[in-house]
Amino acid sequence: MSLIVQKYGGTSVGNIERIRNVARRVARTANEGHEVVVVLSAMSGETNRLVALTLEANEFPIGREYDLVISTGEQVTIGLMALCLQEMGMKAKGFLGHQVAIITDSQFGSARIESIETERLVAELKSGVIAVVAGFQGVDAGGDITTLGRGGSDTTAVALAAALKADLCEIYTDVEGIYTTDPNICADARKLKKVSYDEMLEMASLGAKVLQTRSVEFAKKYEVPVLVRSSFSDAGGTLVCKEDKDMEKVVVSGITYNKDEAKISIIRVPDRPGIAVKVFRPLSEAAINVDMIVQNISHDAHTDLTFTVSKSDYKKAMKIIKEVAAVIEAKDVIGDTSIAKVSIVGAGMRSHAGIASKTFDVLAKEGINIQMISTSEIKISVVVDVKYTELAVRVLHEAFGLGKDEVVEEKG
Amino acid sequence: MSLIVQKYGGTSVGNIERIRNVARRVARTANEGHEVVVVLSAMSGETNRLVALTLEANEFPIGREYDLVISTGEQVTIGLMALCLQEMGMKAKGFLGHQVAIITDSQFGSARIESIETERLVAELKSGVIAVVAGFQGVDAGGDITTLGRGGSDTTAVALAAALKADLCEIYTDVEGIYTTDPNICADARKLKKVSYDEMLEMASLGAKVLQTRSVEFAKKYEVPVLVRSSFSDAGGTLVCKEDKDMEKVVVSGITYNKDEAKISIIRVPDRPGIAVKVFRPLSEAAINVDMIVQNISHDAHTDLTFTVSKSDYKKAMKIIKEVAAVIEAKDVIGDTSIAKVSIVGAGMRSHAGIASKTFDVLAKEGINIQMISTSEIKISVVVDVKYTELAVRVLHEAFGLGKDEVVEEKG
Repeated sequence: MSLIVQKYGGTSVGNIERIRNVARRVARTANEGHEVVVVLSAMSGETNRLVALTLEANEFPIGREYDLVISTGEQVTIGLMALCLQEMGMKAKGFLGHQVAIITDSQFGSARIESIETERLVAELKSGVIAVVAGFQGVDAGGDITTLGRGGSDTTAVALAAALKADLCEIYTDVEGIYTTDPNICADARKLKKVSYDEMLEMASLGAKVLQTRSVEFAKKYEVPVLVRSSFSDAGGTLVCKEDKDMEKVVVSGITYNKDEAKISIIRVPDRPGIAVKVFRPLSEAAINVDMIVQNISHDAHTDLTFTVSKSDYKKAMKIIKEVAAVIEAKDVIGDTSIAKVSIVGAGMRSHAGIASKTFDVLAKEGINIQMISTSEIKISVVVDVKYTELAVRVLHEAFGLGKDEVVEEKG
Repeated sequence: MSLIVQKYGGTSVGNIERIRNVARRVARTANEGHEVVVVLSAMSGETNRLVALTLEANEFPIGREYDLVISTGEQVTIGLMALCLQEMGMKAKGFLGHQVAIITDSQFGSARIESIETERLVAELKSGVIAVVAGFQGVDAGGDITTLGRGGSDTTAVALAAALKADLCEIYTDVEGIYTTDPNICADARKLKKVSYDEMLEMASLGAKVLQTRSVEFAKKYEVPVLVRSSFSDAGGTLVCKEDKDMEKVVVSGITYNKDEAKISIIRVPDRPGIAVKVFRPLSEAAINVDMIVQNISHDAHTDLTFTVSKSDYKKAMKIIKEVAAVIEAKDVIGDTSIAKVSIVGAGMRSHAGIASKTFDVLAKEGINIQMISTSEIKISVVVDVKYTELAVRVLHEAFGLGKDEVVEEKG
């Protein structure tokens, strides 16, 4: 007997028929003798509907009451799921964040989980109850409902799996697992059987929208094995786990891309100590995350400074940077929203030289100009003109042999 | 400075524009220097939508998870109301049943309030916060969310007013107050300035759907003055309060009707001790409420037994009674759903003879046959063929002089 946490996203519980399908899968797992905790998102579209209502009520609907409204979506799905399971003759109960309890800080809208009380859940599981837990929500020390931010249900599932010392955390979604790249771009994209936490972190934060970054950090920290799979089929999925020797043999695991960033360049910045602080502190104070930063070598005591921010922060960042540029006497500020970041990710990169030069070579042959470069131990990211995104992904995917059908996929 | 509880029903908060209108009224009351507690229902239609979802999930969606789902409607409105108030520059916070806390028993779907903790609300009110409380919901001793049954938000408001020792509980609805009868039937129906708790109890349970019966019982028990008024106008409303000398002068306060009952007659029941128990115990065990009961005088050791139940219980009751009739060897069971109950209510009836005979006289003159009669200290109810409902109401309304424009109405 194992303890299994299963998380189902909004598409998987988008209507009653789908909720009933999920209930059948949950019941099957329970009938195989496992203890099952189910974590659910809101029905697809529901969170957007609720957010729209708050925006009608208030121009800046942030804080305690915003979380109060949007946390209702998950409350409805867990109730409906438990009712479906009861109809099938199973013992099932719905639990809200504060009933578990999932304790968070008080950052409404993007709260972080601080601890999870497992006593009640353990007792319910022991008595044969399927625990259906609302994803995305928690409760702060004052008893106020908090939400974890978009995609927070993944984090709820992994955190619960960690707290309960579950044998497996299954993340059910509308794709069959993690692919070497976007199958919409490369028809021969291949599903990975395994990826390491680190690779998944790079992929999650780089634009493969299957797993939320924070949930992978949680999984890595507590070594929770996470199986990403489809709720619409019985295919095997992708296991996200600790790096093992097999993985090191694979030099490159996947190619990802992200069109949601914008580039800002400050031209002819006086090159003296303390300038970087003057540029980036105001951005951080405005809660704007800066992703890539490139500073060119200095000519006649001046340099160009280029960085990327998410497109949603672009206008705010430009306003701040224009003010900063005036103060530090830079010559100009140039923004560009027509960019894409393409990344090559692989745990095996660590021990293989030449990945970077091969990347640059492949792109150069296609006439794709590289605007920025950033690297880590297990990834190389380049910024290119957005119009080259698909081309860049396709040629890199082929150049690193990712499309080959080397690995035989099991089908569950 | 007073402490005022204001309750707004589903129509009053049916969309964001209406919520904003209510918020303006709430803000005005707060700006006049009062402490304000706002109790809200779900947006009109929302509870029905949620109930329909639970019925899709489960044939008999009763219990803990049903309450979990349908309690979300109020959670959304209190969040949106607080956000609207905040947009207007007011300090406002939303509170769920378990956050107040409103403690109930564990009768999911029709829980009863056992106690209310006022500490947090009092502290918030003292610090200038408008407390926006979810109606219709509470929490049981185990921390599970409960709901109070349809119309439960009225009870929440009155119970909060009692617990907080509020100066006034205002119930805002889509009518301007309590009328001498349904204005759709009598164009000259008159709004009452005042009614006693007892009269209101008779009216509430007899079909005037403005205030929920339980809320009036609560108001009577704790002597909470309740002002029923419209959220769409500034008209004065009707005060429900302790009986005073003025009220005693008014013999009849109003005529109500109820088309939601059905009549069941058991024909030729052997007239011996213990028969009534055999008939009514199975009904009570099936949670069927019996309203009026009439037993005719006995002929040759047999009698006819007639009673009414709500139409929603009619089929179930007929099935039970047919089984009982076989056991007690009654001759036949006859059901009739084409009936209406018309009632004359008035605190002044106690000290006035002749109301009953006048009632019968008036109806007889119109050729309306009375099928059943039931009386209390302050009301007389008769069951008639449903087709005579409007006629009976109209002639009684006129006969007791209720349409006269004796009382001059203040306009707020």
